[in-house]
Amino acid sequence: MDIEKVFNDFEEELARIRSKANHIIIVTNDGTVLHSTTDATTTRTIAGLVCNLLTSLANSAVRDVDPTDELKYMRIATKTYEVLVAPDKDFTLVAVI
Amino acid sequence: MDIEKVFNDFEEELARIRSKANHIIIVTNDGTVLHSTTDATTTRTIAGLVCNLLTSLANSAVRDVDPTDELKYMRIATKTYEVLVAPDKDFTLVAVI
Repeated sequence: MDIEKVFNDFEEELARIRSKANHIIIVTNDGTVLHSTTDATTTRTIAGLVCNLLTSLANSAVRDVDPTDELKYMRIATKTYEVLVAPDKDFTLVAVI
Repeated sequence: MDIEKVFNDFEEELARIRSKANHIIIVTNDGTVLHSTTDATTTRTIAGLVCNLLTSLANSAVRDVDPTDELKYMRIATKTYEVLVAPDKDFTLVAVI
């Protein structure tokens, strides 16, 4: 595996998403923040609540309806912003737009 | 208030949403199902999990970030379907597409 290429692809993808989002947060599924473009307080609140609780709960809700199914993403819209949550095997990408 | 007009408007709106969704579930915020176009098991699972737990949790997550803010809607996409959850003061509309 060409680590440099993987890293460049990742940076490009992040820049693409960043061009459309106000903030990006990447957090592991146990809540460790890998990357964030917003302040620590907002990061901790969103990472803790949106990622851990909401994602795990949505995943179990999806499996309750159909055990073979899988959560792909969630979009949470409030009066002032939208949060896109894309859970993956090891981490969750959160874009605040 | 012209009850018949309110009822007709409601039926029209439901038909409009129904034309775009596979199923519609309307549930009060304490979990009582007012209307459903899907089977009882799926209705109970979605009403119970998606509406009560997810909505209340998303609402508190939103308020934690900004107490003046408010959850407008959630969109949950899985491999096989999408659920749109629109919470309101007294009830929550869920469209499965």
